[in-house]
Amino acid sequence: MADILHRIGVTASPDAVYTALTTVDGLASWWTEDTEGDAGVGGVLRFRFGPPGGFDMKVLETEPGRQVLWEVVDGPEEWIGTRVRFDLKREDDFTIVLFRHEGWKEPVEFMYHCSTKWATFLMSLKAVLETGTGEPAPRDVRISNWH
Amino acid sequence: MADILHRIGVTASPDAVYTALTTVDGLASWWTEDTEGDAGVGGVLRFRFGPPGGFDMKVLETEPGRQVLWEVVDGPEEWIGTRVRFDLKREDDFTIVLFRHEGWKEPVEFMYHCSTKWATFLMSLKAVLETGTGEPAPRDVRISNWH
Repeated sequence: MADILHRIGVTASPDAVYTALTTVDGLASWWTEDTEGDAGVGGVLRFRFGPPGGFDMKVLETEPGRQVLWEVVDGPEEWIGTRVRFDLKREDDFTIVLFRHEGWKEPVEFMYHCSTKWATFLMSLKAVLETGTGEPAPRDVRISNWH
Repeated sequence: MADILHRIGVTASPDAVYTALTTVDGLASWWTEDTEGDAGVGGVLRFRFGPPGGFDMKVLETEPGRQVLWEVVDGPEEWIGTRVRFDLKREDDFTIVLFRHEGWKEPVEFMYHCSTKWATFLMSLKAVLETGTGEPAPRDVRISNWH
């Protein structure tokens, strides 16, 4: 098993970060504009990225201002069954987001891509909360031929 | 053991990317302006980031247009003995960089930070080769309270 790890600090409250992770509008502001579904525990969120498709995430756990945990229930084969975890804490004047996309069976090349792409989307989360403007798909940062 | 993985694609030749990874001037253009040392196999490169310190890397292997491998010989305790690997290949109209910072003993919080920070530096590598302007330290992208 292999995990993608990231850490960012956002100059916004834990509640603001939590809202960006647990509402359809919040998620659409930094990850993909094409976000639909039910963000409550037990619900399924559908994230789409145009022709490449996207991901369906079941919301497993949420704790206001503290934690969000999803399980991938549909999408690329390598993603299915993996989990995406956001842990929040306050430190200095930042809300720290510890991100973990865990449970990859193998460190395939697609995992390398997703790791970098997650970093750019987390920087988009930081940007939307600090400046009001994120870079969600389809306006996301292009990192390679795989977009 | 845990690894940081990233993948970017650069619209520059493998030789240009290789030069940015194997010369002091090239490394200073995207990672840190305070780069010194010997970039040849067996040499030691010293990367500094102001008060936080930096890293000394021994160059273990280089293959023009294909691969660069370093071992961390001085720096933060968590980094010592880890290896940093860049594998290059041509795909579509991009030079693909597969990056791996391998051999972390534990997935400590500092590893989360370094993963995101590596992503922003690799985007700086892409930027300097595509636009002529990178974001090396001390002009690097701030991602959190840990900078």
